[in-house]
Formats: sequence, structure tokens, C-alpha cells
Amino acid sequence: MAIPVETFFLRPNEQGTKQGRIQQIVAEGILSGRFRRGEKLPSSRALARHLGVSRITVTLAYTELLANDYLTSRGRSGYYVSDNAPEAPDFQPSEAADTVDWDVALAARYPGAARLGKPADWTRYRYPFIYGQPDPGLFDHANWRLCAMQALGARDFAGMTDDQYDRDDPELVRFLARHTLPRRGITAAPEEILVSLGAQNALWMAAQLLTPGRNVVVEDPCYPDLRAVLAGTGAKVTPLPVDEHGLRPETIPDGTQVIFCTPSHQCPTSATLPQARRVALLARAAELGAVVVEDDYEFEMSFLRPPSPALKSLDAEGRVIHVGSFSKSLFPGLRLGYLVGASRFVAEARAVRAAQLRHPPGLIQRTTAHFLRLGHYDALMRRTAKVLAERRRVLERAIAEHGLGVAGRGAHGGSSVWMRAPEGCDTGILAERLREVSVLIEPGAPFFSAGRPPRNYYRLGYSSIPSERIPNGVARIAEALAEVGRGG
Amino acid sequence: MAIPVETFFLRPNEQGTKQGRIQQIVAEGILSGRFRRGEKLPSSRALARHLGVSRITVTLAYTELLANDYLTSRGRSGYYVSDNAPEAPDFQPSEAADTVDWDVALAARYPGAARLGKPADWTRYRYPFIYGQPDPGLFDHANWRLCAMQALGARDFAGMTDDQYDRDDPELVRFLARHTLPRRGITAAPEEILVSLGAQNALWMAAQLLTPGRNVVVEDPCYPDLRAVLAGTGAKVTPLPVDEHGLRPETIPDGTQVIFCTPSHQCPTSATLPQARRVALLARAAELGAVVVEDDYEFEMSFLRPPSPALKSLDAEGRVIHVGSFSKSLFPGLRLGYLVGASRFVAEARAVRAAQLRHPPGLIQRTTAHFLRLGHYDALMRRTAKVLAERRRVLERAIAEHGLGVAGRGAHGGSSVWMRAPEGCDTGILAERLREVSVLIEPGAPFFSAGRPPRNYYRLGYSSIPSERIPNGVARIAEALAEVGRGG
Repeated sequence: MAIPVETFFLRPNEQGTKQGRIQQIVAEGILSGRFRRGEKLPSSRALARHLGVSRITVTLAYTELLANDYLTSRGRSGYYVSDNAPEAPDFQPSEAADTVDWDVALAARYPGAARLGKPADWTRYRYPFIYGQPDPGLFDHANWRLCAMQALGARDFAGMTDDQYDRDDPELVRFLARHTLPRRGITAAPEEILVSLGAQNALWMAAQLLTPGRNVVVEDPCYPDLRAVLAGTGAKVTPLPVDEHGLRPETIPDGTQVIFCTPSHQCPTSATLPQARRVALLARAAELGAVVVEDDYEFEMSFLRPPSPALKSLDAEGRVIHVGSFSKSLFPGLRLGYLVGASRFVAEARAVRAAQLRHPPGLIQRTTAHFLRLGHYDALMRRTAKVLAERRRVLERAIAEHGLGVAGRGAHGGSSVWMRAPEGCDTGILAERLREVSVLIEPGAPFFSAGRPPRNYYRLGYSSIPSERIPNGVARIAEALAEVGRGG
Repeated sequence: MAIPVETFFLRPNEQGTKQGRIQQIVAEGILSGRFRRGEKLPSSRALARHLGVSRITVTLAYTELLANDYLTSRGRSGYYVSDNAPEAPDFQPSEAADTVDWDVALAARYPGAARLGKPADWTRYRYPFIYGQPDPGLFDHANWRLCAMQALGARDFAGMTDDQYDRDDPELVRFLARHTLPRRGITAAPEEILVSLGAQNALWMAAQLLTPGRNVVVEDPCYPDLRAVLAGTGAKVTPLPVDEHGLRPETIPDGTQVIFCTPSHQCPTSATLPQARRVALLARAAELGAVVVEDDYEFEMSFLRPPSPALKSLDAEGRVIHVGSFSKSLFPGLRLGYLVGASRFVAEARAVRAAQLRHPPGLIQRTTAHFLRLGHYDALMRRTAKVLAERRRVLERAIAEHGLGVAGRGAHGGSSVWMRAPEGCDTGILAERLREVSVLIEPGAPFFSAGRPPRNYYRLGYSSIPSERIPNGVARIAEALAEVGRGG
């Protein structure tokens, strides 16, 4: 690879001769790892012209670097970084002395959410009982690629390269309105729909608009990243303990202004909120004049019985903001979700999004629209449901066999089981031990609100582990639990 | 297309017989435009099983709908939405009565930025002197598609489908560090780089972290969307009038904590900040203990002379946060940019981004990385520069010919000229008139801070208008100006 001439600059007011400074640029480039062995330097003519110096100055600099074995010459073909040049570490931080006091300069902080025991190299573990990562074996890569090709074709492409400012792909919005939302029992017009960069982004927008300085309730345990988002808005957050059926509407305190909930599959217990509680929840919200944000993050994973309609489908008052996602059902790296609510609210969310990022990339929106429209999505969901149902069967059997404690399982399906270890067992420590035998589980403590979270819960996800590995994986968990129980 | 059975729900507590409710679902689906003429209904067997009712109930409902001509029957092949069924408007808003008082429920607002006279259908205008839209004729669509195919290939794809949580594509970051940033004179390690969803998103992140409640200066005139972002953070913003060379460092008031600036091409005047002022700006920032955010949004468009290095390249103190973008140079719908700063700051920005959207989609990052690595980007920039140089020549000639007033032109290039109409001319009105003769210009008032902005400035972008149309377009502008001058 050739080193582009544009990476050379002579700065005014620098010390030393021009020749010396050129030598320094080359040497620093090599020592910092930017210029690599075997890479070709600009010709002396080109560099001289670029820097506005005489050609002899460049030649002298190169000759000096040759003598020091930074460079080699290959006759008429020019100068190259020498194979004997010092090999730099992959990257060094820049040398700028950081004199800024960032503790003062930073006017706001965003607490990072817990990573939930999901190491970056999770695929190298044999028994990954983790949540929310895709199973590459299930995804319909071939058809996704074809849809992307179509979106990249000349006809679609022109429309997508424009700055859409705050608009979404009308094809995707139309499909959401006509096919996706009706399956959740929701009727919505395009102006009541906003595409987001994943469900996280939709929750973030809702939180920005609704929660600054407000009284907000969340479920306890709950999705830790939601708490992270709310920590950044100055909301006054009250966690409400859930029971085996999920949120208890009667526990929502007076003065509550915003209610975040996961009626379809409570996160992380997988409980589905019963119909009576849904009605009670909406009645309580109406009584309080509160807005409800429904995170409907996993409704497609309903393979044991048909999914219940979304809470939003019962909302006759425009009080519920519904958040959905394609990231779980397609693949998480896709970063595509949506938000459905009253048109007035959606217009405000659109303005936040425009300030924040304008719009999710058009290519991603259009590819997804094609994938949905051509039926690949439905086929994928059916295939996934079948596989998850099988894994769930195997997992339930293994759990029963080893007598492990289950704290919550989705009646409709889902992709995880919420587990309870014996009292006194710290599942954080359990998870660390299990890593050593190639098992990944998710400790439960990060899902609970701060204070003194119970430490004996954990989550077993089965979206990324093949059926045939589940029994051995569960056996290893049982073994480790027994050891912990023996105080081992 | 078949109507999926999953869009049918019987809600508990609803009035009427089951048969009547099924009829209602179908009729409402047709009347609301969700079910279209010719679409096939689920078989009576499938629907009965799905709803948990007897098959005869469904058959009776269908027969009734047949009699009312909502449906037709095609013998054994089933029931279809009738060709005589009422044709619905494309979409109706949902019927939910919006009883929420959104003026109360919304705890925060984001003022939408001005759209700068760029109508959504700008491509239908013959003389679009607008800024920042791509020229589809220039983009290397074929190679972009090849790079996307490679990113969609099995090898790359697996790594990109994962939830990357807060990480970026290492290939893209490496290329930025080794090739893109050195061209701006910037040395940065990967932990000092964060990929963003376009420059807008990078500015947004910087503003979230640095500006809440702080004393902030911006240039006047300036990029209106920056003001929109700052309006949302509670910053105390002081606009500093620029002169023909850009920001005047000596005007930065005591107590300033954050400085937003565009040294490469001042937005919108295109002025390049002279070296002496850059040195003075950094000295003033150091004196104040202020952080500088450099929006380097258009450095590739330097075709008249080599670009000056970024302000960040002079920053020995880690005080400058550098924002760059691929959206201008590739295409705006791409939504890809980056932020470079002290590692401590970048770590905080990464946490904001994780809360807000996790990470820009992997597919977009990897496709761009391939496009850069294979040299297509550089080739595209060279081609674009050549075309822009030609357009600039033609535009300058036409402007001189008609004696129009120029208020600022980029010495290095750029893609717009900042124009001054005679005193008393309102370019907002001028722009409206020009639309009628198929000319689009950008009125200048939205760039100025609120209060009493001068109304006689406008911007002529030349990134989207072919050379051969420029003379006629400028002639029409001159004509309209003359008419306005005559009070016509």
C-alpha cells in the first residue's frame, strides 16, 4: 500500500530545517505504527510539490532515512519502509498531554449499563446460555443478502442516498402499519410510527421527552439499560417489585407520571401480564394522567401459544407508547426498531431524533422493508420458533432432571428462563466459575434496582446455544451449584 | 397477498357475538385500508383454530361478509376481499381519542432546526443551488455495491450481526486512525476515536456531555442544527459574529467553557481560519480552560489548494474534539461520521452512545471500511474535486458576469458560495419567487442567531447542480434580484 502524500504536513512555527522535519514525519509515522514495513513512500517529486519545498530537500531527507534503515530504495521504483524498520506496537495513544480536567469539563455523565456477563468473545464458549445474541445458523443470510442487493440497486439507491432529514423509508413504515402492528392488535397511521435505531434508541427518545424531572416507575427487576437511560434524564425513578405475573398495577404510587413496563415478556422474568392486570394498569394510568411506555421487545418469540395482543391494542386514549424491535428477531447488529404512539408525541420524537442522528440509515430501512415484504421475515420467525421450542423442551427437561429452581418462564415462549439458585448463592461468583468450564450464564443482580439486590438469581438464555449442548451445559451448572452449596 | 391469521384477535370483554366480532375485524380491516382488494383471507379452519372458536362461527361470519360484498368466494380456493369492497383512503389515523394532555406530559422539547429551503422534492427543480445533497451521477455506485456485497458475505457478516454493545468496527477505526486522520494532520489511537451516526450525531454527543448549564460560544452565522442541539441541553449560548476570515478568538468572552467552531470551512461563509487565529484560538481556550469542538465537515472538498491541517492537529493539550463526516463526501443518507478526542472524553461519549443507540449499524461501518481500504473513496474524492472545481469556475464566472455580491467563498474549495443581496432584499421572499422558475437557493437568515438576523444573505450550493445549468440558474437569480430591486 502506498502512503498518501496528503498525510504529510509542514506546520508553521515548527523547529528545525525542512529536511529535518520531513525525516521526523517519516520516522514518527513508522514508530507510531501508521507507516508499515513494505509500504511505498510518495515520490520525491510529489512530496516536494505537496509541501512546497525543493525536490532536493526531500531527496536528502529520504537518503538520510535510508542510511538509518528506516527506508529502503528499490531503484527507480522508489522508497519503501524498510523491513528492518522498528515494528511499532499496534497503536500508541497520541502524545498530546491531556491537560484538560475532564472531571470539571464534563457537564453530564451517562453511567454505562452492566454488560450482563456477556463477554465479547462469547462465541468461543461451548455453552453460551446468553440472551439476545443471534444464532447465525438460523438467520436467512442468503435472502437478506438478496434484499440488500435490491436495496443497493440503482432504482432504490438514488432515493436512499439523500439526506432524509427526519423522514423514514415510506416502504418500511407502510409495512409496519399494515402487517407488523396489526399482528400485535395495533392500528396505527404512518404519522403515529417512528423508526428507531433499535429498541434502545426508542426507549431513549421516550425517556428524553417524558421523564426529565418526572416521577417514573420501572419494574424491579428490569432491563438494566433502561435504568441507565433514566439516570441520564434526571427522572425520579421508583422501582416496583414484580410477582410471577409481572407488574402489579395497584402498587403504582400516586403522583406517578410515566410507567415503563414489559407486558408481553417481563424482562427478565419472562412473565406475561394477565389481561385483568392490563386493564387495571391502563385504568390506573388514566386515573393518574400518566403515560405508559410498553417495551414489546420479544413478541415474535411466542411458540408455545399465540402471543397476547400488545397493551397498546387496548389503549383507547392514546396513552401508551409502544416500542418494538427487529434487532432481536433479525440480528442485534441491525439496530432497527420502532416507536408507536399518538401523532403529537411521535412528531416530538421525530424532532429529537433529527437533532440526535437525523434518521436510521436508509439502506438498512429499505433492506428490512424488502425482507419483510417478500415474506422472508415470517418464514424466519416460524423457523426460529420451531428451533426455540425444541431448545426450550430440552432445557426444561434438563432443569427438571437436575432439580434446578425456576423463578420465571414465559408461558408464550421467549428465549430465556429466569432461575433461582439457593439462598446465599452469589450467581456472580457462580458465573465466574462456570466460565472456566466454558459455560456462560447471566447473573441476575444487575437487573435489580440498586441497594441490596438479591444475588441468587440468574438468567439462562437459549437463543444462541444448540439443543444438543443444553443437557451438558445444564449438568455443569448443577455441578457448580452443588459445589457452591457444599461451600466448595 | 394473503392476510396473515395473526392479525386477528378476539379481545376479552368486547361486546357482541364471536361471529359478529369476526365480521367486524374484517370490515374494519377493509375500511381502514389494512386489507386490500383481492387479498386472501385465512381459511375458516386456520382462523377458527387461531381464535379458539368453532369453524362454523367463522364460516357464518364469512358468509355474511360475502352477502355484503366485502368478500368474494373463489370456490375451493377460499375467500378474498371483494373487488367491490369499499376502497379506503391510504391511511386513517387510529381512532384512539387522544385524551393525554401532551403539553403537560412532554417534559422536554426539541426545537426542530430550520430546513434551509430544501424541499423534499428538490430533484424536480432544474436549478438546485442547494447544499449537502449528493450528486448521484458522481457517486461510485458500482464499487459501493461491491463493497456492500463483501460486507454481506458470510465471512464479514457473522461478526457484524452480533450486538457490538458499544464497540465499533475495528477495521473502520483502524482505517480512520491510519489514513483518514493523518490527512488532517491528526494522530489518534483507536481509543481516541468514536464512530457516530453522521456529524450531527457526533455534535449531539459532544453537546450532551459538555454543555448542560455551561457557557458556550458558537459562530454567528452558524450551522442551525447546532443551535437546535444546544437549545435542548440548557447551555447558555453566546453567538460570536465572524468576519471574512471566520471566528475572531479575541471576541471569546471570559467565562466561556465550550467553543464550537468550523475552522476548515466556516459554515456558512466558507472562510478558512488563518493559522495565526488558530494559534490564538487554542491559546485563548487554554487560558479559559475551555474545550473546543471542531466541526471539520467538509475538508475533502479542497480542490483549489491543499487543505490546511485540522485545528486538532495543533492541539498539544487534548483540548480539541474533532468531528468529521462521511455523509457529505459519500452520501448524506449513509449517516456515518466520527469524533476524535482525549480518550477520557471518548470513553464518556461511548457511554452516551451506548445508552442512546448502542452503535452505528455494523453493515454500514464495514461497507465503508471496505470502500475506504480499496481506494474507492480516494478516487471518488479526486473525481468529485475535479467536478466541483469546474462548477466553481463556471459559478464564479456567472456571478461576476451578473455582478452579484459575494460575501464569502472558500479559498480551498468547498461546495457553496455565501452571497449578499442588496440591503433591504429579503432572500426568503427571493427564494420563494425563484422556486417558481425552478431555482432553489438557501436563504441566509436561519444561519444567524435569533433576534434580528440580516435578511439579505443567501447560500449557493453547487454540489447538486451540473455545470451546464449554472449560468442559466445564476441568470434567473440576477433577474429576480433586479425585479426585487425595482420593487417588482
